[in-house]
Formats: sequence, structure tokens, C-alpha cells
Amino acid sequence: MAMTSNPMPHATWIWYPGDFEVWLGNQFNNRRTERGAMFPPFWKQDSHWPTVEFSTTVELAEAETIHIKAEGLFNFMLDGKLQFGMPDEFLIPAGAHRLNFKVWNQSTPPALFIKGMTIHSNSSWLATYEDKIWIDENGVAHGSGIYVPAAQWNFDRMDTPPSAYRLPTLRQEPVAQESIGEGMLYDFGRETFGYVRLSGLVGVAHLYYGESREEALDKDHCETLDVVSPHQELGSKAFRYVYVETADNSHYDSLSMDYEYAPYDESHSGTFACSDKLLNKIWEVGAYTMDLTTREFFLDGIKRDRWTWSGDAIQSYLMNYYLRFDTECVKRTIRQLRGKDPVTAHINTIMDYTFYWFKSILDYYQYTGDLTFISEMYPKMCTLMDYVLERTNSDGLVEGKADDWIFVDWVDFPMHKRGVLAFEQILFYKALMTMHTCATLLHQTDPYQQLAENVICKTRQLLWNDDCQAWEHAIEEGEINHQITKFPNMFAILYDIVDDATKRNIVDSVMENNKIDPITTPYMRFYELEALCMMGKQTQVLQEIRNYWGGMLREGATSFWEKYIPFEQGTEHLAMYGRPYGKSLCHAWGASPVYLLGRYFLGIQPTQPGYATWEARPYLADLEWMEGRVPTPNGIIHIRMERHYVCIRSDEGRGRLYLGNRCFDIEPHTDYHIPITSV
Amino acid sequence: MAMTSNPMPHATWIWYPGDFEVWLGNQFNNRRTERGAMFPPFWKQDSHWPTVEFSTTVELAEAETIHIKAEGLFNFMLDGKLQFGMPDEFLIPAGAHRLNFKVWNQSTPPALFIKGMTIHSNSSWLATYEDKIWIDENGVAHGSGIYVPAAQWNFDRMDTPPSAYRLPTLRQEPVAQESIGEGMLYDFGRETFGYVRLSGLVGVAHLYYGESREEALDKDHCETLDVVSPHQELGSKAFRYVYVETADNSHYDSLSMDYEYAPYDESHSGTFACSDKLLNKIWEVGAYTMDLTTREFFLDGIKRDRWTWSGDAIQSYLMNYYLRFDTECVKRTIRQLRGKDPVTAHINTIMDYTFYWFKSILDYYQYTGDLTFISEMYPKMCTLMDYVLERTNSDGLVEGKADDWIFVDWVDFPMHKRGVLAFEQILFYKALMTMHTCATLLHQTDPYQQLAENVICKTRQLLWNDDCQAWEHAIEEGEINHQITKFPNMFAILYDIVDDATKRNIVDSVMENNKIDPITTPYMRFYELEALCMMGKQTQVLQEIRNYWGGMLREGATSFWEKYIPFEQGTEHLAMYGRPYGKSLCHAWGASPVYLLGRYFLGIQPTQPGYATWEARPYLADLEWMEGRVPTPNGIIHIRMERHYVCIRSDEGRGRLYLGNRCFDIEPHTDYHIPITSV
Repeated sequence: MAMTSNPMPHATWIWYPGDFEVWLGNQFNNRRTERGAMFPPFWKQDSHWPTVEFSTTVELAEAETIHIKAEGLFNFMLDGKLQFGMPDEFLIPAGAHRLNFKVWNQSTPPALFIKGMTIHSNSSWLATYEDKIWIDENGVAHGSGIYVPAAQWNFDRMDTPPSAYRLPTLRQEPVAQESIGEGMLYDFGRETFGYVRLSGLVGVAHLYYGESREEALDKDHCETLDVVSPHQELGSKAFRYVYVETADNSHYDSLSMDYEYAPYDESHSGTFACSDKLLNKIWEVGAYTMDLTTREFFLDGIKRDRWTWSGDAIQSYLMNYYLRFDTECVKRTIRQLRGKDPVTAHINTIMDYTFYWFKSILDYYQYTGDLTFISEMYPKMCTLMDYVLERTNSDGLVEGKADDWIFVDWVDFPMHKRGVLAFEQILFYKALMTMHTCATLLHQTDPYQQLAENVICKTRQLLWNDDCQAWEHAIEEGEINHQITKFPNMFAILYDIVDDATKRNIVDSVMENNKIDPITTPYMRFYELEALCMMGKQTQVLQEIRNYWGGMLREGATSFWEKYIPFEQGTEHLAMYGRPYGKSLCHAWGASPVYLLGRYFLGIQPTQPGYATWEARPYLADLEWMEGRVPTPNGIIHIRMERHYVCIRSDEGRGRLYLGNRCFDIEPHTDYHIPITSV
Repeated sequence: MAMTSNPMPHATWIWYPGDFEVWLGNQFNNRRTERGAMFPPFWKQDSHWPTVEFSTTVELAEAETIHIKAEGLFNFMLDGKLQFGMPDEFLIPAGAHRLNFKVWNQSTPPALFIKGMTIHSNSSWLATYEDKIWIDENGVAHGSGIYVPAAQWNFDRMDTPPSAYRLPTLRQEPVAQESIGEGMLYDFGRETFGYVRLSGLVGVAHLYYGESREEALDKDHCETLDVVSPHQELGSKAFRYVYVETADNSHYDSLSMDYEYAPYDESHSGTFACSDKLLNKIWEVGAYTMDLTTREFFLDGIKRDRWTWSGDAIQSYLMNYYLRFDTECVKRTIRQLRGKDPVTAHINTIMDYTFYWFKSILDYYQYTGDLTFISEMYPKMCTLMDYVLERTNSDGLVEGKADDWIFVDWVDFPMHKRGVLAFEQILFYKALMTMHTCATLLHQTDPYQQLAENVICKTRQLLWNDDCQAWEHAIEEGEINHQITKFPNMFAILYDIVDDATKRNIVDSVMENNKIDPITTPYMRFYELEALCMMGKQTQVLQEIRNYWGGMLREGATSFWEKYIPFEQGTEHLAMYGRPYGKSLCHAWGASPVYLLGRYFLGIQPTQPGYATWEARPYLADLEWMEGRVPTPNGIIHIRMERHYVCIRSDEGRGRLYLGNRCFDIEPHTDYHIPITSV
């Protein structure tokens, strides 16, 4: 039950908001290796604030002793008076008091744990990195720092400080092993992630990891490898296969692994099952792909890049709302991607990824209703949007500058990426509308709606081709690039910037037009298929899911891939970026059926933030039956549909079930069994 | 010889510019304690960039092995290809190559040391915290990071990394000890700084430090104290006296100290001696005060606050140019005070201190001619000035906002500090003119001169009282505060914003007007006396120095104080901020005679940056003779004056000696003996 707040205040570790994520993010992103070399990201890595002050006021009926623990050197001020040293405990007298702790820690985020009878450190405390308190000639203190609520999570014991945070592990054995050449090949049966353990190692062993058998056996080209000595801790790796060779006079007894995973609550998870076993398998492999890529943060792929990427993450968040509803991992990833001011580049240096970052906050609010997080992030949303706005052209449109990466997608056809791209403008529009929504929620001044309308109006003038009923690709220095791709056109449907008739025209002219270059990454197929679902094309989409994701399963996939081109053969499926095993075979963006099946087949989504109201529009397509659960902030919605009835039950919110042109109100904690009558 | 660059390239540790200072500054500023509690500053503390990339290109006639050492985890890329692990050495083949190292270190600044036959890490290498390199679908790397020259200093050996930097120490013994009450009082003979050592301690000892005997013996009110157990390392403290009590069953053998100091080059130091022994003593105690407060950075006072304060530091820099010419300490302090972007407050949160920070860069350039440093700092000057300009009022003038500290001085009379203060505008003007100078030097766009002229023009309209020939104090919401203080008026002389006739009028109407409230801190006496010297009032100033600084010596000072009010009695001299020993008895700003005697009596100053040209205007006043040396970037200027002649010799620059209305060109490396003829 992720969103419930504990009614009894309890002591927990606190820190400055965002600092844990910035620090943990550096640990996380810097764990990537490539053939034994560490491989930090290309973008700026920030640090936590090294010195943070935490404070609260208390009103005690009687004196009480507080127990004090800090990560870092600290001081303690009671009612403005500094106390000696760094005490483990302190007796606070009865009455009204002000408590201030200042903690300094260069290596890990300054954090504090205070536990008394009634005094407990938690997010009711204030934090600042700049108290601006100064003393006048009479020794009187003045201050004007900016204080924010301290951050907390689940570090509720004195001996579980934030810096000790680790994911749990589980010992696992290989399912097969085979002697090949001078070494031994181990197979763990499916894609996995964790720490290989060599027991009884004497001497030196060489480990070659493979997501495929071919990769593990290709010592010269496998993407990750280790040279290991006795008692050496290995870093975590992604693999299904491990090929081990020992040096002369070296040997070991056996090989196993510690599988590392992010724990989740099975009872608060989404499920999906239906009459088509292939679809069930696709959902299961999608869920496993999501579980492997959901870690301290949502990462792109477990072999590569092992970094947080905003464009990948927004899809993980959406899938997660239909799978584990791990809102803490969503918040951590959003915070970590944003980092600290000043903004010196787009998120991940990619312009599109900046815009997805904004949109992900809108999604988060819609699924969780958590206004506190919007309030926390809003100042950083403003400074990031300032960065974007400072770089717009004279029309108020965005163009890639020399140091901007314009990504869009990995495409197999030539695509112009300079000047004004329709795709980027549509994403920019949505980012501005997100600012508008959040500004309105927080009662802040809102220049954003007008800016957003200008963006769409100008882009329409420049790049909407009325004859073709399609958005053209780009304009650079007055010259239009007339290429028509699915990218801007599907986002025009998704982000609702054209009327319904035009959307239908776009489906015909672009989305279902065989002359338009096909999309070959699951990344953009996510949006392509979502747009088709929004246009009521679930039956075709279901067939696409069977073909495309089913195609990966037929190729032996045990998790979904970064990219899949059906007509490729054999080891061609493993190559990417000019490297024979460059492709990631476990990529979060590969798992989109988890989202599509929950949202457009079970058909459940919030219509007001946090499922205060929600709708179910189940769509059986060609299936005999389907059944599943969708998690909501404080419970689940269960739905089963057969040809002749729908069963539904929810734990919260006012629901509405749509069946054809009929609709039914769904109250929580009530079982509904609704016959489907032929119209 | 601080400014000469080594003609032979050598290997030295490198890091990202400013990171060493940011990191060291946190160590430094957080060492302050108050009665056993740590006491970090009120302002934001920043961090070094945790991940930094260093790169160079080489052209090798033959292969060579490089030795590699990093502070942090690192990777190494040769010609764009990542190499395995973290090698200690690597053979670089003959030919042209590109070397990239990426170093990650959360705790201390990422730093690198590379030493080969011809390949050496030094500031010819480039550094970036954001390489923005990305790989396209074909695996081709693109990049657009911002690269700057790597920083270096004197860490020239592999085993002397930047994070190991410590000042040297020297064991010293107390000059007297006296049994008092239950304990023992030790006297080190004069103000000192370092680490007390208790040898043979069994049990627990309580140490009470005193800059005065009274403070050390006042266990309940002394500002610093320690409770020490065997083998416990004590932090550094400022003291002359230490009072030691042992707990029951505790004892020790003896007490000594390790005096900690910043090394300097005696042959490259300023000196002053004259026929007046009191002045000689004042200069010596001033020099000792400067030596005690010149450390990793220039600090305000060694007991308190032990922080870098910009207003204090700019005076230290100026004194330093006439004493040790430690330009590295100047640069370190300027970098450390500025910290990192974004700017969230004035330097030290004080508006005036922001303006002094700018002015200190102008001074630095004038004394050293070091354009490289201007170039390094200019981007941070711009962002700080942006912060100031965003907060100006509709007239373009600065007013203190709620979170700005308007300091001016510790005054003993009421002083209004809101609205538009003439004092702050004049400092703002000089900051803008500093921007103008630096922008011009670096060929940057320059909006600053016009802004500066507007500030003075508007301030003159609002606050110049022509009848009184004085600047009035302030205007707030249209209402003028007619108070006349020395502060804006002396800075109008110092910063040359009025014509010579007006300057003379200001001397009469304000500076030598007994009705104006006197200045009681050596801090502002620095500027007061400098302004009088600029107006040719050296004879009066010399008498003031004898009275004021001689007054402190008569009170037993062994270093100069934070504040001195001649009519106070006994222990009144020790109190400040409402605390009986709150006053710092060793305060850098107390040492201004070191500057005044060098600049306005020996009379030497650069007239073009770095002493390319300089002038000597020696002023004997009532002295029989005086003699001294002034350091220049690559040498010294020696001057001796008696009533009938001047001797002068310099190591560099084109000098000009002014004697009455005569002047003489002074070429370097030449002894001049110039008779003074009565006019």
C-alpha cells in the first residue's frame, strides 16, 4: 500500500530532498562496465549538499531523552545554543524548544536520525543547505534561509542509514553447464542479473558474460568480462550465460550467482491472463523484463547502458503503474534524472528526453494524486523550463543547438535532425502544458499555457500538410523537409493536438500507410500502438503484439530486446552500434505490452488524479476471455471479461465501466457482475 | 618566485579548476568549533564535480610507458577505445594518440597523475565535468562538452595527491606554566595556532583555551575547549594560554604544541624598518598577525570565525602583496569564496562582500598581471553579476532584500541598513567597473561600464549633498536618511568617483570632521587611513598608526585585534557580540599597517599589471629613515630613504621614483642612490 502515510509518527532517517537520489544515482550510473573498464555517463554528475541543517520545534509535557545518530559530523543547537561535541543522546527539558542539527558529510548525503519518546525525525522536520543565519554586533541571530520539508523513505532504524541502502540478493545455481574448449559454459536458463560467485577459486579466472550463448563464447567481443582473483568481490552483471576459463595452475570448485532484485508486493501488483497462451507468455516475459530493469532506479537495459535515461524511464513508469506500482522508484528516478541546478544540458543531453521528463511528472500525478511531490519538484521544473525557453528561436520553437542531442529514435532510414522538427515541437508543447497544469495546481504564475498554444499554432503553420493530412518532418533555415514519419503524427494523436476527424485521417494517411517507413524499436512501437489503441484499433494492435513480441519469443528471447527487426536472421539479432553483441537483450522499453494490455485491453485508467475517479473500458478483441488486476494507490482493481459478462471490483475511487454505449458506476469494495447484452 | 612557469614540462597532479578549493574550503571552514561544538558557516557549501574527464593528445616518436595514478575510480580510453580495468601503467605506441581518463570520486576531488618519458599530466591537459559524448546508431562518437585547462599546483609527486595536502607543523613548548586551582595554566608567550599535545595522558583531561589569560581561566565562558582522552587527536586551536584540568585518577606528563603555519619564502617577502621602534614593532606584530591568518586560505581570525570572509580577505590580499606575495593563497581564497553555480546568495550572504570579491580580482590582476586567472574566473564573475543585476531596483541600484546581509561595519552608533545605501552603490559601481575591465581584457561584450556610470549618476542625484560636500547615508521608499558617515565618503575618494577638489572637500567635511562618528574597527580604519594617505595626509596617518595600533600593543597585544576602542578598560577589550571573550585577538583586518607602510610610506605600487611598470613615492613623514622591500611577481623592490637620499633597486619592471616634483626612471637590476636636494 504505497501511498498510505503512517498515522503514528515514527523516527526515520531524514536528508535533504533529492540528495539521496543524486548520490545513489552516481553509484548506480557508474557501475556500468564495458569489457572491464568503468563507464560513467556522458552527462554531468552532481553531488549532494555537503552541509545540511535539520530543525524542528517541540512542546514537551515532560523532559525526554533523544537518541541521536547522524551520517557525518554534526552539531546540535538547543534553543539557539550550541551544545558540546556530538552527543549520542541528550535530555530535552519540558516545555517549548527549538532543535537544530547541522550535519556535514562529503562522501554520502548528510542524514539524521532522532528518536525520543515523542520527538522523532521525519519529514515534518525542515531542512536547508543554506541557513543564512548571521549574528549582529549584539550577538543576536538573524536568518532568512529557504527551508523545505526533510526527505524520508523507509530507513526507520538507527542501524539502517541511507548510505547503507542495498538491494536484496538470492543465491541461484546454473541450470546447465557444458565444457567447451579450455573452459566451462554455464547457463542460468534465462536472462538474469547479479553477482557471479566462484567458490574455492585458487589462482585467476577469466569470466566472459553473455546475454546470448554466442556472446559468452566470444572472448574477444563479449560486452562484459571480469578477471577474478580469490576473495575478490565482483560487480553485478547482466547475463544468461557465463563462460569461465582459468589461468595455468588455477582452478575453482563451482559457480553460482546472487540474483539481485528490487522487492515488490505481490498483492499490490498488476496481472494479466487471457485465452491466448502466446499473449500470456508475452505479458510474463514483459513483466520479467520490467522486474529486471526496475532497480534502485528504472534503467534502460541491464547489460547496457545500465544508466537512467529519461525517454526509457517514462515508459518504465507507465508500465510500472500497471505492474508493481513502485511509486518510490518513479520518484527516485525523476529526481535523479533532474540532478541539481544549474541546468547545463538537456536531461541526458537529449532534447526529447527533457520533454519526456516533464510529461512523466504529469503521468505520475495522474496515477498517484501525490501533490507533495509536484510541490517538491516544481522549482526544478521551472529552472529546467527556463533553460529550454532561453534556447528557443524567434518563433518560440525549439531547435537543436550544437550541444543538443536530438534523438527521436534509432531509425534505419535517413532522418534530418537539425532545425525545427515537428516531433520536438509536439513534445515541447506537452512539456509546457505540464508546467501549466502544475503551476495551476500550486497557484503559481502561469505563462506556460500561452507559450504552449503558440508552439502548436506556429508548428501547424509551418509543418502541417493539409493535402497529405500529415505533419511534415522539419524546417531548417526556411527550407521544409517534406519527409513524413510516424513520429510527430502519432504524438499528435497521443497528445490530443488535432481534432478527432484529423486523427482518423492521420491513421489512414500515416499510421496505416505502408509507404511510411516502419518503426523498428519497441521504444517507439510503444507510442505507435498506444496511438492505434486510442483510435479503437485494439484488434489490429493485438495482432501486432503477437507478431512483434511473439517474434522475439520465437527467436528464444527470455526478456525483451532493445530493438527487433523481424526479417533479420540468427546472430544479426545480437548486433547493434556496429558491435556483434552491442544490442541489449533485456531492455525496459521492450516490455510495453505490460502497459498496453493493462490500459487498453483491461482498459483501466485514472480519470482524476490518484484514481479518485477512474474508468474501465475493457476490450476483448478476438479473445475468449481475459482477467487481470491493476494496482491503484491504495489497492487494486480486478476485472474479468468474457464474451457475455464483465466482473469488476475495486478498492478505491469512483469507477465507471463502459461497455459499448452503456456505462455503469462502480463503487469500491463491491463485486459487480455485469452481463453483456447484444445491442 | 611565484609567477615563473617551469620551462621543462613535468608531471603533476591535475583536477578540475576550483574543485580543490571547494573541497578544501569545506574542510577548512568546518574546523571552527565553539565550546566543543563544530560550527560550519551560514552559507551554502558546494562540492567538487564527482566525475571529471581529463584528456590530451600526444605525438610520440617512439612508444613509451605511462605511469597512472588517480584519486578515485577511473577509466582510460586510448584513441576512443576503452582499456581494461584501472591499469597502473600502459604502453602508448609510437605515433599520434588521444588519451582520455575519466575519474570518479565522491569524497575528494577527482585528480590524475600521469608520468611517462614525454607524457606528463599538467595544465596543458583539458578537463570537463560533462563531455556530452554520445554514440549514434553506427557506434560513432559525437561530443560537444565544454573543456577548460586542467588545474594544477605543486603536487608534483605521485605520492603527494591533492587530498593529502596539509600545512606543516613545528613542535613548540610553553614559555611558562603556573599551577592555579585544580589545574595548570600554560603560556606560550604570544598568540599562536596549532595542535596541543598532552604526553603521557592517562584518563581524561579538560583543556580551556584562551587568547587571554582571563579567557583560559574562565572555564564557563572561554570560546574553545576540549575534553581529551589518551591518543585522541585534537583539532587545531588559536590560543596563547591553555588551562588544563584532569579528571579524578587522570594525569599527564607534559604539554606542548605543534605550531601549524603556511610556509613562505623569506627572500621574496616584504620588510619594513624605520627610525621609530614603535612603528617597527607595529609592522612586526602586523606581519605576525598576517602569518597566523594566512593558511590554506586567508581567514578572518584564528580563534573565530576561522572562515573565509570576502571583506576580510580583500584586505589580507592587499597586505599579502606587501608581505609574502603568496598569490596561490589569494587565488585559492577567491575561488573558494565564489564556490559553484547557481548563485543563491551574496558571497558570505553579505552584499558588500560580493562587491569586494569583484574588486579583489581587479587588485589581483594589478599586482600579478595574471590574465590566465581572470580568464578562469570570468564565467563565474558573470553569473555572480547576473545575480546582482537581477536584484537591482527600477533605478538600477542595489537594495538589501530580505535575505541579504548589509554589513558595512561593526558600528557603535545606530545605522539604517535598508533601502539604497550610498556605501553599497559605490561598491557596486567598482564591481561593475571590474567587470568592465575584465570584459575588455578578454574581448567580451561589455554592458558593464554603462551600468556603472548609471549607478554613480543616480546615486549622486539621490544622495550627494552639495551643501555639506558629503554623501548622505541612504534613501528608502523616497525618504532620505541624512546621516553622514565616513563609509561612503572615504570610498568615494578610494574609488575615484569625485574630482580632486571634491575629495579635498570631503576630507574637511567628513574625514577630519570630529562631529562624524569615529570608526572603531581596524577593518574600516584600513580604508579610512588609505583614503587619507591618498590625499597626502601620511603624517597624520603615521600618528594615527602609532596611537591606534600602538594602543593595542600597550594593552599587551601580541597580534592585532578584531576591534579596538581606545577608551575601553581591562577585560572590556576582550568582549564582543555580548560574550566576554567573543572578540578575536588575532584578526587579519587588524594588520593594515603592513599594507599602509608598504604602499604609502615606502610608497611602492604597480602602475601596470604585474609591475610591468611601477612607481615609488616614498614618504618619510616625521621619520629619520626608513627601509624596506616590496615583493613583485618575480623579485623584489628594495628602497631606503633618509632625509638626504633615496636608495632603490628592483628586479623587474620599469619603475619611476617620485621625489617632490622630480621623478626618475628606475631600470631593473641597477642600484640607484639619489640625493634629495631641498627645493
